Amino acid sequence: MSSIPPDTDWLAEIQFDNQGLIPAIAQDASSERILMVAWMNKEALLTTLATGHAVYWSRSRQKLWHKGEESGHQQIIEEVRLDCDSDVIILRVQQTGGIACHTGRQSCFYRVLNNGEWQTVDPVIKPPAEIYT
Amino acid sequence: MSSIPPDTDWLAEIQFDNQGLIPAIAQDASSERILMVAWMNKEALLTTLATGHAVYWSRSRQKLWHKGEESGHQQIIEEVRLDCDSDVIILRVQQTGGIACHTGRQSCFYRVLNNGEWQTVDPVIKPPAEIYT
Repeated sequence: MSSIPPDTDWLAEIQFDNQGLIPAIAQDASSERILMVAWMNKEALLTTLATGHAVYWSRSRQKLWHKGEESGHQQIIEEVRLDCDSDVIILRVQQTGGIACHTGRQSCFYRVLNNGEWQTVDPVIKPPAEIYT
Repeated sequence: MSSIPPDTDWLAEIQFDNQGLIPAIAQDASSERILMVAWMNKEALLTTLATGHAVYWSRSRQKLWHKGEESGHQQIIEEVRLDCDSDVIILRVQQTGGIACHTGRQSCFYRVLNNGEWQTVDPVIKPPAEIYT
């Protein structure tokens, strides 16, 4: 994928928002579990394609965020999909360590609405203190 | 779920953006396929919970959008999940007709990036002209 030039039709087709961003959903290609949602700008997307690993744009830190740069929990890209409005991307990935969330869980979506409460239903696979050392 | 009062802790926990919206990912509870992404405000979410069917906020039309109101392709809610940042929701749904996209496909994410092109890889299940009569 590293041979894709930056200014091509496929890139122009993507509808980035007025801040130059598009939401990207990371989905585990094996379990089909939705792992997380983050944001990408053009540079993040091109870097993702060039490296084969998910690279997002951190809105809080205002810089590229190589997923796994601290935790080691990289996401290896298997497929990139675009929706009919061209304003949301799916990254189908292999999740290194089986952990996408900073809480040490597989997915960031570990809470379910149940009887008027957000119940945590997924286990911590590895405690954050052991991940971020 | 219709007994949930509107002003409770679970609702206050959700981080709506500065326009009062949160992205909602609809995922097919059977196939695990990601069907679409749309937006919800508080009213859309409360109406979704009260009716048991997905109701979104249409940003283009600036009004509630009962998914399937024209197509008949409603989404029956099985589960609602929230991510660790509390700013993205997943609706796990039963998709009526097996079609979520206005193009007549199962999912809005029917294009895959391949050799620098967005390739359509999913079939039209029912032509739009037959859906929107």
